[in-house]
Amino acid sequence: MRKVILGAAISLDGYIARPNGAVDFLIMSQGSTKAMEEFFSTIDTLIMGRKTAPVSGSSGFPVQMPTYVFSRSQPPGERKGLTYVNESPAALIEQLRRQPGKNIFLMGGGELACDFLKADLVDEVSLSLVPVLLGAGIRLFQGEFPQRDFTLVENKTVPPGLVGLKYERRRP
Amino acid sequence: MRKVILGAAISLDGYIARPNGAVDFLIMSQGSTKAMEEFFSTIDTLIMGRKTAPVSGSSGFPVQMPTYVFSRSQPPGERKGLTYVNESPAALIEQLRRQPGKNIFLMGGGELACDFLKADLVDEVSLSLVPVLLGAGIRLFQGEFPQRDFTLVENKTVPPGLVGLKYERRRP
Repeated sequence: MRKVILGAAISLDGYIARPNGAVDFLIMSQGSTKAMEEFFSTIDTLIMGRKTAPVSGSSGFPVQMPTYVFSRSQPPGERKGLTYVNESPAALIEQLRRQPGKNIFLMGGGELACDFLKADLVDEVSLSLVPVLLGAGIRLFQGEFPQRDFTLVENKTVPPGLVGLKYERRRP
Repeated sequence: MRKVILGAAISLDGYIARPNGAVDFLIMSQGSTKAMEEFFSTIDTLIMGRKTAPVSGSSGFPVQMPTYVFSRSQPPGERKGLTYVNESPAALIEQLRRQPGKNIFLMGGGELACDFLKADLVDEVSLSLVPVLLGAGIRLFQGEFPQRDFTLVENKTVPPGLVGLKYERRRP
């Protein structure tokens, strides 16, 4: 079954971006580029919130692939290579899983991640820990949802100081 | 010089406790007990906030050691094995560093950790990541402070699924 992977690079204090959205604290290195390429080879679909989309939707990705943007303010439909949706996360995932394909990458964004976790749709969490405390910013995990247990399946140090962690959802 | 170590076990979403203070999600194992014993052999002083103190101040620790409790509401002085202080974090650390000794363990607690990070008094961050998303709770990092850069100095997997990370402060 196609897995939904919540993935992000975060600071040690859990931020995916500075308060203004900047991600200049991210460290790119040979190791991190290789890890990202490996990760992107396992997915073929992107899901993000509207606030993430304008920045990263159209470019900046190693691979172009079908991209779904959740938005309450934008009308549903395809525009500029992005597919806007306003159905429930569960409905979209059910629809995507009816089609064969690779894994599905749920990108960044606290609100959307929270909605997916509420609906227990996250099968894997993939984190890259950046060795910095930002002290302020946009959190990967914001909003409340029920406890979700995971199993650690990968822990690797990526020079110069990133920690790559992969967790699989452990459902009762 | 005696280092100030901010240390905590946290969930993947950055919580040190549930909303009611419970820490039942922490995993104890042979590996984690050994790691904790090793850590405690390097410190000889505890610092915590008042909200942390009643639970863990008098017992539950492998070793008894001098314990300083920051409190705005309690009068300063020694009571029941705890030393209450209301001076600035910088003043206490300066005083402790005038005496020889091992490292100083700054425990848990968002508000006090934030005060220490604001004053740039944290020399090391030691995290144990528990493989669970709690979805709500008391954050290790709350409140704002200036960016603090760190260097990863240790990354180990501790069965059954904990990740032990140690970071050293990298000052300009």
